[in-house]
Amino acid sequence: MKKIKVGIVGYGNVGKGAEKVLHHTDDMELVGVFTRRAPNTLTLADPKVPVYSVDDAPSLTDRIDVMLLCGGSATDLQEQAPHFASMFNLVCSYDNHLKIPEYLASVDAAAKDTSAIISAGWDPGLFSMVKLLSESILPNGKTYTFWGPGLSQGHSDALRRIVGVKNAVQYTLPIDKAIEAVRSGALPDFTTREKHLRECFVVLEPGADPVEVERQIKSMPNYFADYDTAVHFIDENELMQNHAHMPHGGTVLHSGKTTDHEHVIEFALKLESNPEFTASIMVACARACHRLFENGTFGAKTVFDIPLAYLSPKSHAALVKELL
Amino acid sequence: MKKIKVGIVGYGNVGKGAEKVLHHTDDMELVGVFTRRAPNTLTLADPKVPVYSVDDAPSLTDRIDVMLLCGGSATDLQEQAPHFASMFNLVCSYDNHLKIPEYLASVDAAAKDTSAIISAGWDPGLFSMVKLLSESILPNGKTYTFWGPGLSQGHSDALRRIVGVKNAVQYTLPIDKAIEAVRSGALPDFTTREKHLRECFVVLEPGADPVEVERQIKSMPNYFADYDTAVHFIDENELMQNHAHMPHGGTVLHSGKTTDHEHVIEFALKLESNPEFTASIMVACARACHRLFENGTFGAKTVFDIPLAYLSPKSHAALVKELL
Repeated sequence: MKKIKVGIVGYGNVGKGAEKVLHHTDDMELVGVFTRRAPNTLTLADPKVPVYSVDDAPSLTDRIDVMLLCGGSATDLQEQAPHFASMFNLVCSYDNHLKIPEYLASVDAAAKDTSAIISAGWDPGLFSMVKLLSESILPNGKTYTFWGPGLSQGHSDALRRIVGVKNAVQYTLPIDKAIEAVRSGALPDFTTREKHLRECFVVLEPGADPVEVERQIKSMPNYFADYDTAVHFIDENELMQNHAHMPHGGTVLHSGKTTDHEHVIEFALKLESNPEFTASIMVACARACHRLFENGTFGAKTVFDIPLAYLSPKSHAALVKELL
Repeated sequence: MKKIKVGIVGYGNVGKGAEKVLHHTDDMELVGVFTRRAPNTLTLADPKVPVYSVDDAPSLTDRIDVMLLCGGSATDLQEQAPHFASMFNLVCSYDNHLKIPEYLASVDAAAKDTSAIISAGWDPGLFSMVKLLSESILPNGKTYTFWGPGLSQGHSDALRRIVGVKNAVQYTLPIDKAIEAVRSGALPDFTTREKHLRECFVVLEPGADPVEVERQIKSMPNYFADYDTAVHFIDENELMQNHAHMPHGGTVLHSGKTTDHEHVIEFALKLESNPEFTASIMVACARACHRLFENGTFGAKTVFDIPLAYLSPKSHAALVKELL
């Protein structure tokens, strides 16, 4: 079988994860990594993989079946995705929920004779699929999402912007009692504070005042003020040793009724590496994207639009025999 | 919007569940229930719904968009499904795993200008979808299925066939320690006995010997011999009062690695009524089946072949905005 030729755009955490995942994906071949930095400044996990400037991408359209866009959602993807969609099939994990409709439309407009799958991560992505499935089956019900235990990049960044903070990480922790209440079928209502805790591990700059830093953290609107937040001051060594990984996860629960019978659907992820798992989803979606293109289904699609069989390298007959 | 017109074939537990579910499904209308019994012997939950003989179905093809086949997998569906597929779009929850490929082929051959979705329950069905998704994302991993806590019809029937047993129910219980071991990422191997317990509540015929009945249960091959089985003798009253419901559920766990990072995907169902939940899945799939037909996609399909968006009554724009 001919391998699917894949390119990676952006060599941050997800791009690095994608390189590793593709290395173990038998039906795909990594053609190259594309970067906005000087290509010779990048050291890949596999030095045999070529590094290109993003500016060289247009000359490689005939050598790549699907591009994985691994840039950030804050600024990179909104520019990159329409640009690349005009030339390549692509998959991204764009995760700015509020702007997804607009983003989908802009990629769709650009993907005139290419295929794209957007927002292919776990949230949005797998969680969205479970929510759709759950509310379609049990419309008389309610869906709850809990995040963590896991490291939140956005909240860690917010901590690092505080004057006096040298380095920091933040963990989001779901409150077990709240999850138990949903599992019981009680359809509870929660305040923000009742669903999640926030735990911060902070390294101070020399001479910074811990009392003042803690006060600033706990009163930060949107990020911490509405939560019970624990702040621990540690030294840089401890941060490097115990908090260098990027675990994450979460739980979607849907509780609903048929007549007077209560049912609970639960989907949970426990991930040791958030970027590697996200990259794994993108790689499976690259397979689906390639099939969409081969079928002549152009434009931007989401995880709601793909038959699940497209995600697997197995034949339809094997899927039916082994998994149905 | 025009409602989807639905018929129910078979008025057992799932058929009764489907009637109730359709009653609360705004975009569908229940046209009638079809039975092999004398139609006037059936008492529906809603007496305004007409009851027809299955033999009258051919004269009603232009009044029904989708038929829900609610017969049993042991004998009914293998005959009924190809017969009905030649006339109607249909959904069933055929669950004889080993024979699904053959069943799919026979329905597909009959559905020349109709659309069918087969094996649309929770196992096969939702569990199959999660397994496909999980192994596509984490191919370097292992999938585990646990059933229960729940009432198993097949095992309850087996108990009732023993001489001296007047009535009985059997509960399948997953062993928590085994689930915990999978959650830990340890990729354990289990014997049959290590995954599930079986618990039987048995009403004896007058004069029957409890010691002999218990011996026969515990030594029954395939059903009980390979399990730790508890047998409780109770009276008919207690059986009716405490064991008349049909709860069920189960858990699919997939544990897999990317490089040296372990990830666990968990999907669990806790159902107060197995037949009503199964009917709810079939109803959502009836919506998808109708869309397949409207798009001109004929033949027999599975849950692996349907874009998830087809299951929902919401517009694509609403799904993207609310759930992605």
